Amino acid sequence: MDILKEDTIAAIATPFGTGGTGKIRISGPQAYQIGDKIFKSVKKEKKLKEQKTYTAHYGEIRDPKTDKTIDEVVAIMMKKPHSFTGENVLEFDCHGGMTPLRAVLELVLKQGARMAEPGEFSQRAFLNGRIDLAQAEAIIEVINSKTEKSLDLAIDQLNGKLSNKVEKIKDQAVEILAHLEAAIDYPEDEIEGFRPEKLGDKFNYLKQETDKLLKSSKQGKIYKEGLKTVIVGKPNVGKSSLLNYFLEEKRAIVTDIPGTTRDVIEEYINLKGIPLKIIDTAGIRETKDAVEKIGVEKTRKLAEKADLVLFMLDINQGITAEDREIYQLIKNKPVIIIVNKTDLEAKITKEKIKEEFPEPSLLWISILKEEGLIQLKDNILAEILDEEIEADTEAVITQSRHRDALVKAQSAIERVIVSHETKMPYDFLTIDLKDFLNGLGKITGETVADDILDRIFKDFCLGK
Amino acid sequence: MDILKEDTIAAIATPFGTGGTGKIRISGPQAYQIGDKIFKSVKKEKKLKEQKTYTAHYGEIRDPKTDKTIDEVVAIMMKKPHSFTGENVLEFDCHGGMTPLRAVLELVLKQGARMAEPGEFSQRAFLNGRIDLAQAEAIIEVINSKTEKSLDLAIDQLNGKLSNKVEKIKDQAVEILAHLEAAIDYPEDEIEGFRPEKLGDKFNYLKQETDKLLKSSKQGKIYKEGLKTVIVGKPNVGKSSLLNYFLEEKRAIVTDIPGTTRDVIEEYINLKGIPLKIIDTAGIRETKDAVEKIGVEKTRKLAEKADLVLFMLDINQGITAEDREIYQLIKNKPVIIIVNKTDLEAKITKEKIKEEFPEPSLLWISILKEEGLIQLKDNILAEILDEEIEADTEAVITQSRHRDALVKAQSAIERVIVSHETKMPYDFLTIDLKDFLNGLGKITGETVADDILDRIFKDFCLGK
Repeated sequence: MDILKEDTIAAIATPFGTGGTGKIRISGPQAYQIGDKIFKSVKKEKKLKEQKTYTAHYGEIRDPKTDKTIDEVVAIMMKKPHSFTGENVLEFDCHGGMTPLRAVLELVLKQGARMAEPGEFSQRAFLNGRIDLAQAEAIIEVINSKTEKSLDLAIDQLNGKLSNKVEKIKDQAVEILAHLEAAIDYPEDEIEGFRPEKLGDKFNYLKQETDKLLKSSKQGKIYKEGLKTVIVGKPNVGKSSLLNYFLEEKRAIVTDIPGTTRDVIEEYINLKGIPLKIIDTAGIRETKDAVEKIGVEKTRKLAEKADLVLFMLDINQGITAEDREIYQLIKNKPVIIIVNKTDLEAKITKEKIKEEFPEPSLLWISILKEEGLIQLKDNILAEILDEEIEADTEAVITQSRHRDALVKAQSAIERVIVSHETKMPYDFLTIDLKDFLNGLGKITGETVADDILDRIFKDFCLGK
Repeated sequence: MDILKEDTIAAIATPFGTGGTGKIRISGPQAYQIGDKIFKSVKKEKKLKEQKTYTAHYGEIRDPKTDKTIDEVVAIMMKKPHSFTGENVLEFDCHGGMTPLRAVLELVLKQGARMAEPGEFSQRAFLNGRIDLAQAEAIIEVINSKTEKSLDLAIDQLNGKLSNKVEKIKDQAVEILAHLEAAIDYPEDEIEGFRPEKLGDKFNYLKQETDKLLKSSKQGKIYKEGLKTVIVGKPNVGKSSLLNYFLEEKRAIVTDIPGTTRDVIEEYINLKGIPLKIIDTAGIRETKDAVEKIGVEKTRKLAEKADLVLFMLDINQGITAEDREIYQLIKNKPVIIIVNKTDLEAKITKEKIKEEFPEPSLLWISILKEEGLIQLKDNILAEILDEEIEADTEAVITQSRHRDALVKAQSAIERVIVSHETKMPYDFLTIDLKDFLNGLGKITGETVADDILDRIFKDFCLGK
């Protein structure tokens, strides 16, 4: 592939804010010509464009009009094709404040570079054939990953695990398709390697592999996006205490590296690799006021947003009308029933709960005595993960775009199977088999329209 | 100097948050050994420690225990002494999310690096003699600079403009000191080059240069920290309109580079290079309510914090009791009197204002017709900057620490002059001249105690 773009793009590639250092990234045919207009090496040696690839150079950014020094930088060059974008890439590591970064970027733009769109560097990497679409999408997943487990899955995808898996399924489908088309074109001949009696098995295998990938998407989504969890229950049942327990656990993890607490990551509690997000905690905290009503509307709204509901009861109060009312609001969601205050006298039995609130997951805890809390985490995991993802061996679907493509492929292969079982002519099979391939091709990007591509990359952050 | 530290430090050097890329910086004798434990070059070529300085290498970070890939990175190496710290420096440019950066940093720490303290990289650069203290302090000023003008001053300081100036003054003082000491030790001899009759001129020259530097500190502080400005006036005088005028101006400047609006920079209005901060605007906005009282306490508090007060009058209302009351609260601050609504009938004269509010800066504007607003900006500048800073030729003091050191030096040289004029023995002069040198040495760091050094670097951001 050689569809290198003609213009040269530039952007601030590091997060906005203040830090030790920040990077301006420039990519395109003019990268080094632009760089040479404003970069002066301290050693006053060769120009950047004469330097070797994968070298770094200490120097100054100077405004060619005023000869004023804007910043001291390290310039790093990665020449095509062995760069992130597959084009000539030049990076300036500047001081990490917004004013020096803006000043250097503005100077770069004045020399003829164009401000990059969000995701445009990755898009070029894809268009230049350096990575496929699933890998390009993995980049943003790596960046946005919330736990090491989700990072793991994203790195796997970046390294081509999903792409390879999809390609393997596609290869088999292509082979069958070739046999079928040959059999259509030369109905009298024997097609080498084609055993019609094995077709059913082969179609079932394709469906089975597609199903497996699709099945992983539920868990992939959770690892990627986190698990939205709400704690509900009547006033004074212990919701704030449970929340604080989770938050304290988190704080201990987060604060071992200074500064990281400032990040968005702190919204999530890392539950064995699953980013657990307890939503609308402000609302929960309000319930310290014992005379407050249950808040029917609030509870309903919380439950609507949730992937999982933690429903708390007070062992010492028995099951009350309020509990029943709350249960009506949440019973269509995955629910874990938590009976708190086991340190007090029990006025609730297991049987009674099973009768009134028939949920499979039930747990007895005392937040005060810190009993049952580790078990609670296991129950949360068990409730969500039907079975352990074998992330080390199997590809996992984390993106809804991939999921949608697989659903289409699944439906196509199911039509193939029906046609085959009802002994329809091969023409019918090949049409649906092509649909199947088309669906899978969307994941790696071969069969994705340009406007959809543009939309995918628009979701990237600037400078990537 | 060879006081290289024995341990190897590491930190995330880019701002916290999400971006295209982020950097882990490692510095110290073990940098490459640590890197080689976790970095695998894609080309599987030589180890990092065998690579040349100022080269970059594409590869993967792998956990040596699990052989799991943590991230894809570019490793950049800058060997001692030609690195930022003067030590062996290794940088990993990772994907720009908190999870990959934390994961890589944790792995680096597990291999024996120590988490860097804030400013520790810069501190090492200073301790290794690569830069002096004023230059080290300039690094953080570059990062935190709020306008291109303040960046300019910081870059000058980083490049040694202030240090050179201070050294020049010190050299002259040292020469005089040597002469004086020789004259003390050998009172009978003629000291070569020593002309006692010129001493007065020389001391005055030292004082004059010190005064000049000190004088620049007022303006340096403004460029660095910005100008805290409040708009006061009775209800409906046009405070919100003026605020909005400033804010709209700013918005136009800030939004030409996508994303930058998110930064702290947006708190400041850039007034010809001066970061203008209009404080407590929330309070100002409240005054839309015409029946609201002047808010004596609020106005007093606002004025207390301000470097400059914009005091607005309504031309159509004349001078009212409320205006007089407000003026009492602000008259000790630098004030610009702004008579608004010149589009309406004038019930205030210049003479009347001069009589009641004797401030040198008086301006007639109509926000509605956008008249007088450019003049207002010039008046703000004129009010603050007694005279234009000749930043291109003269060193400017931006730090209060330097200012304090200069005040000590100034007082010392004044004592020298008095002693000289009153014909005290040379011994008296040399004691104060040493104090003078000691004061100046604090700027470049020669005469700064270790605990103060530590405190200075603690104010730096992490990773720098």
